Order: sequence, then structure tokens, then C-alpha cells
Amino acid sequence: MNKLSRRSFLGSSAFLSLVGVFGLVPSLYKTRQKKKNMFVHHVYFWLKNPDSAADKAKLIEGLNTLKGIKQIKMAHIGVPANTNRSVIERGYAVSWLLFFDNQQEQDVYQEHPVHLKFVENYSQLWEKVIVYDSVDA
Amino acid sequence: MNKLSRRSFLGSSAFLSLVGVFGLVPSLYKTRQKKKNMFVHHVYFWLKNPDSAADKAKLIEGLNTLKGIKQIKMAHIGVPANTNRSVIERGYAVSWLLFFDNQQEQDVYQEHPVHLKFVENYSQLWEKVIVYDSVDA
Repeated sequence: MNKLSRRSFLGSSAFLSLVGVFGLVPSLYKTRQKKKNMFVHHVYFWLKNPDSAADKAKLIEGLNTLKGIKQIKMAHIGVPANTNRSVIERGYAVSWLLFFDNQQEQDVYQEHPVHLKFVENYSQLWEKVIVYDSVDA
Repeated sequence: MNKLSRRSFLGSSAFLSLVGVFGLVPSLYKTRQKKKNMFVHHVYFWLKNPDSAADKAKLIEGLNTLKGIKQIKMAHIGVPANTNRSVIERGYAVSWLLFFDNQQEQDVYQEHPVHLKFVENYSQLWEKVIVYDSVDA
């Protein structure tokens, strides 16, 4: 990405962000006045057995089954980075970051059979989840 | 984005995710074997005056000053969505989501003069921050 497009991408328009994030074709820039909200769903999982590499791998396997749900526009499965400052929360085992076009799409995801099956099959692995849902400021 | 490209984008390769996220040209798909890590930095701010719309707007103004830092590959400023379940944390005022290419770039951002200036000028607004740094699982 060149400097110019990066800066456009980082502009305040939510729609421009979507263009950058989802790799839409440049012609869509024409419709930038059509501001679109972005729904960010970030889930952090604490495992019942935090030292079990097998349980962590199993949870990641489960999250991978969700990626086929078509409402998801971007998915990232993460683990804590090596950064370590007092404000950094490092106790979770796995993070699950999703972008949706809007809250309605997220609601469809929540009730999607594949998601419900994931909860049924894998929820015994986690002790706690914290979810942060955010939309454009 | 068509269905095929979306599914590729959601594949397990971190590099493919980067292609999708940062809108790189399709020719870069050829280098998909060059796996690249993604560094996700998500900060949640609790305000000293949580009911002050002015303070919230000021913090958002401050975050916007950071967007010019060139190590940032994607930035999103968020506020809590309307979703409301027991696992959802809704007490924060503003969220700040950044993607970096790697931890080193994030480290540069932390010490960047523009970032230090932001902390100096705006930190009196917040009571608490929680940071989640995550890398590819």
C-alpha cells in the first residue's frame, strides 16, 4: 500500500476504513459519502486449564470452524503478545477478533447454527469470556 | 469482495489475512508462503468523567492525532455497541484498535513522539486503560 492510500485508509470515514480492511475495489471510493458503520467484536477466552496446550489448541480448532460463517468480514485468532506493561492484560489464553458490517450481521452470527454448535462443543474449555463490542465513535 | 476471495481471506494463513486487511494487490498472493505475523493492539479507555460527552470527544480528538504514525496499518476508534449480554463489557468509553506488522513496529509506535505527546496531553482524561496485545495463534 503506498503512502497516499494508507493515509486515505486511515481517514475518519468509516467507509474508507472498510475499503481498506476488506480490500474492496477502488471504484467503491466513489461512494465514500455513503458512510457505513463497522462492528468490531473482540472476545477474550480464559481457559479452565490455562496451562493445557491441548485445550488451547482445541479452542483454536473450534474457532476455526466459525470462519465459514458468511457474515464475518474479517477474523483473527490471537494469543497474548510478548509485551508486558502494567496496563496489559495477559491472562487470557486466546482472543477472537471479528469485523462485521453492522450489528444485525453480528446478531445473525450469534444465532448461526455453526456458532451455537461451537458453544455446545467447546464451552467446557473456558472458565471466563469477556466480550467487547464496539462501533465507530 | 466475492465469495471465493472472502473465503481465501478467512483462511488460516496470516499472510492471506494481511492481504485482505490491508488491501494489497492480488499479485502478492503469490508470496503467501512468506507467513507474516500480525500484531493486534486493542486499548479500552475508562474516563474519569464517564458521563462527560466533552471529555469523550476530547479523547477521540486525541486518538485521531495518532493516526498519522506510519507504523499503524489499520486504526479503528470505537464506542460500546448496543449489544448487552452478561459477558459483554460495556463500561469503557472509547476503544482504540490498531494493527501493526509486528511487535517491533508497535514498539516504535509506543515511543513515537506523537504518541508520547498524546499521553502527555490527554491522559488526565482517563481513569483506567486495559490493553490487549495479541499475535497470531
